[in-house]
Parts: sequence; structure tokens; C-alpha cells
Amino acid sequence: MEVINDLLDIDNLKIYQNDDWFKFSLESVLLPNFVTLNLRCKNIIDLCTGNAPIPLILSTKTKANIVGVEIQKDVYELAKKSVDINKLDKKIRLINDNLNNLKEYFEGDYFDIVTVNPPYFPNKKESLKNQDIHKSIARHELYTNLEEIIKMSLYLLKNGGYLALVHQTNRFFDVTNLLNKYNFSIDKVQFIYPKEDKESNLFMIEAVKNGNCGVKFLKPLYVHNNDGTYRDEIKKIFSNEKEDIL
Amino acid sequence: MEVINDLLDIDNLKIYQNDDWFKFSLESVLLPNFVTLNLRCKNIIDLCTGNAPIPLILSTKTKANIVGVEIQKDVYELAKKSVDINKLDKKIRLINDNLNNLKEYFEGDYFDIVTVNPPYFPNKKESLKNQDIHKSIARHELYTNLEEIIKMSLYLLKNGGYLALVHQTNRFFDVTNLLNKYNFSIDKVQFIYPKEDKESNLFMIEAVKNGNCGVKFLKPLYVHNNDGTYRDEIKKIFSNEKEDIL
Repeated sequence: MEVINDLLDIDNLKIYQNDDWFKFSLESVLLPNFVTLNLRCKNIIDLCTGNAPIPLILSTKTKANIVGVEIQKDVYELAKKSVDINKLDKKIRLINDNLNNLKEYFEGDYFDIVTVNPPYFPNKKESLKNQDIHKSIARHELYTNLEEIIKMSLYLLKNGGYLALVHQTNRFFDVTNLLNKYNFSIDKVQFIYPKEDKESNLFMIEAVKNGNCGVKFLKPLYVHNNDGTYRDEIKKIFSNEKEDIL
Repeated sequence: MEVINDLLDIDNLKIYQNDDWFKFSLESVLLPNFVTLNLRCKNIIDLCTGNAPIPLILSTKTKANIVGVEIQKDVYELAKKSVDINKLDKKIRLINDNLNNLKEYFEGDYFDIVTVNPPYFPNKKESLKNQDIHKSIARHELYTNLEEIIKMSLYLLKNGGYLALVHQTNRFFDVTNLLNKYNFSIDKVQFIYPKEDKESNLFMIEAVKNGNCGVKFLKPLYVHNNDGTYRDEIKKIFSNEKEDIL
């Protein structure tokens, strides 16, 4: 069923979702709060954008132009409705295509920032894929994979541009090894823990194209209190407390 | 000045130190609590052992035989006095040599566990070395370096044996890349934070020789409360609360 939800507690940001497919995830709210935004940032692209939660949230934080790329036609249509109802069509451009075709849309070295919340699961025959094709494409590496995403990011980004991504912690070294291979320099990492006393299940990482920087491991982010409610720091992110728009 | 201190709050473990050189560090107390000890573990070796805090603490946790290797003659002498006063000379053997010579002492594939709290700083001419030669050798890679340590660990360990090490967080990827290069599989990582809301300054990592395991990022370890006192979890480690000796 198609529904419309508040994306954040303030800012009156609305997002269209389809209950039967999937909803925007917590990670999509955390990543726009993790990535380094600054005044020089003019162009941002969000790969595997889904129903576009990351572009929508970024639009409240930066004056940069934002592109979102989604391979699934009907998910892309949902994203478009969200962009329209929020009157963001001047700021957010959506592309319905496989990210591997992006060279047909953009010259290289164009973007300041790439964000991506990619499919988490390798496309192995034996891995249990979700029955629902919409969920499968979003969650499994059916149409793209980590290496293609990082290679395409290298093409899209300016020298010194940032790639920010979120992934499952059990694939941490897959991510860092590929970033290494494509000459990204990792500048910050933040591990996400479902609650205190648990192991990390997700992490966010930011890397610089052809950079040469040291890495910082930021303070960890805990999602839930022991009673299952959201931690204050997560509520704060949901309420989108922010400085002036960049 | 040579002094004798309590190493842990209980267990009556004593350690000789020399105030003018350096004292055992917090990391040396944390690492023996991090490494995976089990009943099958028969032989452990601690490289860069200093005045042997890690072997002394391990002796309270395992029935395995423990070797400590220290290059500096007078630091080794201190370690020996500590082993003797604690009546641990049957359990802990100390070697006064460069770890690069260990092939003269041991066949390969002999140890179940290697622990090491290595020198943290690369031996670059421009890096500021401590005036005191004892501290310099312990802190800078003057007589050994990370790659030699990991290479020697590969020689010393049985297949499936554990290498546990602690290092500065800014060298995290130096460590993981070298572990990769020498076919260690990383099985767990724990980041240490000086206090909440700070970036991580240290981390502990455990890797398996010729292993093929997934990595876990354990809950982070915070050292101090905001008022500068030790956190409860650190006090608990100092007091050496433990299950039955293995």
C-alpha cells in the first residue's frame, strides 16, 4: 500500500513509501548527518537512492544541487512524488537508471560528494533472497555491487571529493579493501551499535578521492536504550537539529 | 628509581618498575583480558614484553606456559625480578633478545597465542624520539617494526593460533593491511576511547593464522569518566575479576 509519512520530526519533510516493498531505513537518516558538508560543496549524488530519503534530508542541510539515482521504475516514481510534494524539484534531480550507466549522464570529476546506502548482501545463489523483487533489488547485489559502486564513485567525484557510505559491519574489510584499491583515503569511520553491550551491526565510512589523510574513529553511535526506545542522540538526529543551512 | 608496585588490585601480583624509564601501561592490562584464552591453549608468547605485565597477568588466567621476550637487558632484569618475587619462574620464561632472533629459540608452529603491545611510533628521522633510550626503544620502532612482528608471529603460531595486539588507532589500517598480507584473518576488534564523546585513540585486534573467520567489532571500551576517574568496567579489569583459571 502506498502511504505518505513524515520523514523527520521537523522541517515538514514528507516521504512517499510503499508498505509492501520497503521503507526508508534508519541508516538513510544517519548518513546525511555523518557526511562532511561544507560551503564549497556544489553537487551531490546519492546512488541507490530508493525513495530518496537521503536527498530529501540533505536538501535541508545544504544549498548544493542533489542528484538521486534509482534503478527501479516504481520506486523512482515514489521518490519523484516525494520530491514534488516537498517542492524540491529545483534542488533534487532524479534519474531512473542503473548506476553503471552514469557516464552517459555526467562528465567525470563533477561531484563534490557521493552518498550511498547500497545493497548489503552479495548476490550469491545460495543466499536467501527476499521474495519481493523490490526488496531483493534494494538489499542484494543483483544489479550492482560494492566494487562497481566504488569504481563509479571514483569517476563521478572531483579530486578530494567525499564518498560516504553505510554498510553492514561484517563487510567492513570488504569496503576498506576496495576503497584502498581505488585510491580512496579513509578519513572517518563511525560504528553503529543496536544498543550498549552489543556488537556493532552497521558502520558509516567517509573516504576522500586520491586523498592522503589520517583516519579518525568517531565516538560510536548507539541506536536503542535497553528498553527498546530510541537513544537521545538518535532522537536528536530525527528531529534534524542543525546549524545554518550550508 | 626502581620501585615495586601492585600490578592488580587482587591476586597479590607485584611488578618491579623503574620510575625513570617507563611504567606498565593501561594497554598491558587490557590486552590479556581481550585475547581469546581456552583450555586447549598450552603455549603463549608475549613479544616486546617490557617489565612483563602481560605475562604476569596472563599467569592468573591460564595454566599455559608463557614466554616473554624483551630486547633491553635492564628492563629484562626488572621483569625477571617480578617473575621471581611472584614465584612464577616455572610458568613464565623470559628471553633477553631481539624478537627477530626467535627462530633460534623455537621451531615454527609452536605457540597457540602471540600477544604484543609493540612500539607505536615509526622510526622516522624526523619523529621526535624520547631522550631516554629505554623509553625510545619501547615506543619507537628502533629495533623492530610492525611488519617484522607480524611476520615473526606467523612463524611462531600454529595454524589457527591467535595473534592479539594493541596499537594506536591512527595506525589501524597499517595493522589490518599487514595482517591481510601475512594471511591472518581478523576475528575481533575493540576500540578504546579515552572517554565518551572523544575519538578512539587505541584499539585491540585479534587475528587467526591462516584463518577464515568473520570479524566482530565488540562494544567499545571507555577508560575514564568525564571527571577523570576510571570507569567501572576498567576498575573491574584492574581488579581482575575472572572465572576459573583455564
